[in-house]
Amino acid sequence: MTDLSEMRCEVCQVGSPHATQQEIDEFMPQLPGWEIIEDNGVKKLRSRFRFANFQEALAFTNKVGELAEQHGHHPSIVTEWGEVTVTWWTHKIEGLHVNDFVMAAKTESLV
Amino acid sequence: MTDLSEMRCEVCQVGSPHATQQEIDEFMPQLPGWEIIEDNGVKKLRSRFRFANFQEALAFTNKVGELAEQHGHHPSIVTEWGEVTVTWWTHKIEGLHVNDFVMAAKTESLV
Repeated sequence: MTDLSEMRCEVCQVGSPHATQQEIDEFMPQLPGWEIIEDNGVKKLRSRFRFANFQEALAFTNKVGELAEQHGHHPSIVTEWGEVTVTWWTHKIEGLHVNDFVMAAKTESLV
Repeated sequence: MTDLSEMRCEVCQVGSPHATQQEIDEFMPQLPGWEIIEDNGVKKLRSRFRFANFQEALAFTNKVGELAEQHGHHPSIVTEWGEVTVTWWTHKIEGLHVNDFVMAAKTESLV
C-alpha cells in the first residue's frame, strides 16, 4: 500500500491526470475525517478541525498556510471561532490530483 | 449620518435587536464592495478582497483575526490563493446586528 504521508507533491499541470478510482479507494482509508465533496461539478477533498477558541483555530490556519507555501499547492481554508475547514483540490485540472490526497495527509499531521 | 468607522462593537446577547432596514439603508452606502447574502435563512454581510499571492492573503486573514479578537466578535474568513472572503454575522441572533456593520467598516480600514 502506498503510504500517503511519505509521498511528496508532484508538479501538476493542465492535463495532469485526475486521481483514479483505484487511487481514491486506496487513499481514503488513510484519511479518516476527510470527505470528497462536489462543488459546482468539481470534486474536492474536505475536512473540518475543531479548536477551543478562535486563536487556536487561526494558529492552525497559519500552519496549513505554511505547509501550502512549502509545497506550492494551496487549499481553501475557512477560519471560524473554534473551527477550521480545509479543502484541497487542483485548480489546473478542476478536480482531484494525487497531490491533494498527499496534502490532506500532511494537513492531518499538523493537528 | 452615523459614521460606522467611528462606532464601537456593543455587547450582543440572545434577544438583541437585528439591524433595522433603516440602519441597513444608512450603513450599506458606507460599505462599498460588501453585500448582504442569505445563508440557510441567516442574513450575513460579505466582501471579497484580492491579493497578489497566498502569503498576502494569509497576512490579511491574520489582521482580520487580530481585529476580531480585539472586539470579541468573530467572522468567517476564507483564505485562498490571492483572495480572502470575510463574512460577518451574529450567531446569537442568527442574523445581522449593528455590530456586524461596524466590524465590516473596521475590516475595510485594514486593507
